[in-house]
Amino acid sequence: MAKIDFYFDFLSPYSYLASLRLRRLRAEFGAEIIFHVIDLAAAKEAIGNTRPPFHLLPSKLRYLKADLARWATRYDAPLVFPETLAHVDLKAAARLNRGFLCAARRGAGEAYLNAAFAALWAAQREPGDATLRDVAAKAALDPAQIAAAADAPETIADYARENLEAQARGVFGVPTFIAGDQLFWGNDRLDFLEEYLRDPQAAVHP
Amino acid sequence: MAKIDFYFDFLSPYSYLASLRLRRLRAEFGAEIIFHVIDLAAAKEAIGNTRPPFHLLPSKLRYLKADLARWATRYDAPLVFPETLAHVDLKAAARLNRGFLCAARRGAGEAYLNAAFAALWAAQREPGDATLRDVAAKAALDPAQIAAAADAPETIADYARENLEAQARGVFGVPTFIAGDQLFWGNDRLDFLEEYLRDPQAAVHP
Repeated sequence: MAKIDFYFDFLSPYSYLASLRLRRLRAEFGAEIIFHVIDLAAAKEAIGNTRPPFHLLPSKLRYLKADLARWATRYDAPLVFPETLAHVDLKAAARLNRGFLCAARRGAGEAYLNAAFAALWAAQREPGDATLRDVAAKAALDPAQIAAAADAPETIADYARENLEAQARGVFGVPTFIAGDQLFWGNDRLDFLEEYLRDPQAAVHP
Repeated sequence: MAKIDFYFDFLSPYSYLASLRLRRLRAEFGAEIIFHVIDLAAAKEAIGNTRPPFHLLPSKLRYLKADLARWATRYDAPLVFPETLAHVDLKAAARLNRGFLCAARRGAGEAYLNAAFAALWAAQREPGDATLRDVAAKAALDPAQIAAAADAPETIADYARENLEAQARGVFGVPTFIAGDQLFWGNDRLDFLEEYLRDPQAAVHP
């Protein structure tokens, strides 16, 4: 069975879009998806990528909205761009990411992931404590338990390890997919991942 | 007849790839391509995008090579990554860009464009004076005439105007394609451009 390591950050709308299409690829190819939540800002910083986030550059923000609308139409997926993104609380976003680790330990990682992406990118929720608790509830978890676990030292350590391991594997952005020895970056490279799953021998090894 | 404004920089391998597919789209849709050579570094600077070029970040460079190899395979196009890219002479590259304006004035813009992209991205040539002259010769132009014209004040002014006009239209990178009121950025967005050409009514207006 093909394995796909999927690196994502809830703050990334292209990660959200990729998660939707990955589910279809899993069904089609019988692949296994291994979910890795990481901190996009840290991944960029680790390789010296000082680029300002797209949404802080007005002409890129305008384009980002158009591009996301096009992808949402193609995937027939709900996506509402949050006007508050420029002021997003990065610590709360990292905590929402860590909540995924707590949910995954309890066997509810994917339910949490779907609820978290939907909250941020379809329901215009900000990634604060209330959102984390609602997401936990949607994943049939105890909200208070997940809220506490997200701040526990072992969760913080797990998150740091996920980030370092990702960086060690050459992950410099999200969404990233690793299958076999091939790394693909971006929702817009799922075509290449699909080709690889169809025929790993046809992979272009650089 | 649909018109496509195509913004490119010879230093951009994705512009090279896009130029190949654009030719096919033109044939299929009977569209007109209007060529605009611009300075990628200036376009980025104009919007405050301080991102270091991909090829100066080792993990991104590794990925860039893999990604370009995948696209070259998909397009069945020759593409050899130049190992000297990190030390490329940006002034010579801008001059090769300006040579396009001189060739276009003489009705040989596209021949020059094809020769310049092939020189840099298939034949591992650096964008110096010898390359400019060879490219001019391949476009059936007088090499000495084009070399002189590339440094003429009116050419420098034309190039500056192209750059400012592009920035005014919201072009922040290359390759960019504008059709109707829709802007598409990246070789990897030619699918969206194709959908738009097929059915402009289906465009997602942001």
